[in-house]
Amino acid sequence: MKLGTLNGGRDGRLVVVSEDLAWCADAGHIAPTLQAALDDWAEARPALELLATDLAHEVIPMMRFHERNALAPLPRAYQWADGSAYVNHVQLVRQARGAEMPESFWTDPLMYQGASDEMLPPRADIPLPDEDWGCDLEAEVVVVVGDVPRGATREQALEKIVLVGLVNDVSLRNLIPAELAKGFGFLQSKPASALSPVFVTPDSLGGRWRDGKLHGALKVDLNGNPFGRADAGTDMTFDFGTLVAHLARTRNLAAGTIVGSGTVSNRGEDGGPGKPIAQGGVGYSCIAEVRTVETILDGRAETPFLRHGDTVRIWMDDDHGHPIFGVIEQKVVPA
Amino acid sequence: MKLGTLNGGRDGRLVVVSEDLAWCADAGHIAPTLQAALDDWAEARPALELLATDLAHEVIPMMRFHERNALAPLPRAYQWADGSAYVNHVQLVRQARGAEMPESFWTDPLMYQGASDEMLPPRADIPLPDEDWGCDLEAEVVVVVGDVPRGATREQALEKIVLVGLVNDVSLRNLIPAELAKGFGFLQSKPASALSPVFVTPDSLGGRWRDGKLHGALKVDLNGNPFGRADAGTDMTFDFGTLVAHLARTRNLAAGTIVGSGTVSNRGEDGGPGKPIAQGGVGYSCIAEVRTVETILDGRAETPFLRHGDTVRIWMDDDHGHPIFGVIEQKVVPA
Repeated sequence: MKLGTLNGGRDGRLVVVSEDLAWCADAGHIAPTLQAALDDWAEARPALELLATDLAHEVIPMMRFHERNALAPLPRAYQWADGSAYVNHVQLVRQARGAEMPESFWTDPLMYQGASDEMLPPRADIPLPDEDWGCDLEAEVVVVVGDVPRGATREQALEKIVLVGLVNDVSLRNLIPAELAKGFGFLQSKPASALSPVFVTPDSLGGRWRDGKLHGALKVDLNGNPFGRADAGTDMTFDFGTLVAHLARTRNLAAGTIVGSGTVSNRGEDGGPGKPIAQGGVGYSCIAEVRTVETILDGRAETPFLRHGDTVRIWMDDDHGHPIFGVIEQKVVPA
Repeated sequence: MKLGTLNGGRDGRLVVVSEDLAWCADAGHIAPTLQAALDDWAEARPALELLATDLAHEVIPMMRFHERNALAPLPRAYQWADGSAYVNHVQLVRQARGAEMPESFWTDPLMYQGASDEMLPPRADIPLPDEDWGCDLEAEVVVVVGDVPRGATREQALEKIVLVGLVNDVSLRNLIPAELAKGFGFLQSKPASALSPVFVTPDSLGGRWRDGKLHGALKVDLNGNPFGRADAGTDMTFDFGTLVAHLARTRNLAAGTIVGSGTVSNRGEDGGPGKPIAQGGVGYSCIAEVRTVETILDGRAETPFLRHGDTVRIWMDDDHGHPIFGVIEQKVVPA
């Protein structure tokens, strides 16, 4: 089952979307918003599944689903916490600045508390007041959980994952060093992120959802050119069950909490930094990583961060070449 | 005007509360929840003010307001960001561990993104699975804002402050050093915080709300004994306008965002560490600070962190000795 949100109030209105993302049906009689459905998932889910079946059989009123009109499935959420599950990525970034990565990073997940009061629509512009802030994309997988009790195990946490989607976790790279140096994590350096047009239930993902990971190439194009094709199921050190359990160690998580994978990153064939797509590699899911690889290999970063007018596309195709979650497509604009 | 939230669904139901906190009136015909009122504040506020006037004149159906039945005014919020505006406190904590505090901390606010998916009721127990986590209270002032556009100035941000309240920002001190050393800020070390029984509009606070600060002694009792009486309007380096503008520098803030002052802290009369109440000082708003002062003066911390069975009370009296925001009263319990 695929769920999306169309315009209508701060939280939009919930629609069930067809497998091919061409059609949708209003779900307002079941739950006005996705958050409302998540608040009462045990009741809402079967009713939504029936609606999805009716939509697939074309026996109910349908509307065309236009991704360009979609809001984020959760236009605002009560929690957004983002992991760094692809430790390869973390190690590369550290290596580029000559810093050792603690061994514990391979066993203890790194995660930050993000801002969730405004999740951008999938086609929203990225407003950038100052190009010197070093704007970067970060292509990631996210999951949405139901209520998770404090102290949940990995296995219990896995059971609580109800939806899967994608995010462009926008970062202001040049604000990060000074902000992290203050010791309290990201704040100004993480502006609003954009979510994929639809979120999908794990069971609808078939074999792509296994071991608590989403498998398949996470595709990233930068200004129309292939930039990233890393597999989200490869080199993910911590699966989503582990990430959710990490977040829930000391407190309950409310239904609708979004947990991110961190920037997807695959090692190169030799175990070292991955190559660009033009050189036969799978490329990168953020600009910081290609800059890191450039620094390691060539002594200096060449690829610039995002500038006004640049475009970013993020999606994952199914086995037939159709985007599973729709496409995040954003343009950087002055603000 | 004072607003509270009573039981009824995940977000509770909005009530207008009398000045003396003895009575309340259902506000469901204006807005079902406080978040709904904040979403449409320009419409909701005058209607709620009328209701408050009718309540004061006892011309509408009233119910007794029992703080013990109150939920947090926002049982879940879309954002909670907490500053460290009492730089004195930050400097003391650093001094105790022999670390220099950067000069920039006096001009650039320190703030972290907190978890807001579960805000505890004012009389909720603090569940503590492990006393060795070093559970601490932190008595603070909070403000709630309407929609704040990216790049708002201090003056614009001040105009957006619609409610004022108190928080017990619970911290797990012994988890903090390792977590902050990872570089991404607080996550497991900040379990759910509790909010005061009511939030109050700034204009109802009279002279206590001025210069973007709340003035008056923030009272903290620990196990029934006076522990803190620091004035929230004294030694607050950054006012709330500055804190909100800091948070909004790179992104919009959604209505209902809660911004905290950080632990209230006053210097001693000689400009150094403040004294305990028993020695004629104003005491402390968290245990970490008294431990810091003990370390500086005596070479070692004496006061233990919270243990199972300990109780914490946090409130601020008006000029007649009545709590303005009601009383946060929590007991630490095994979990």
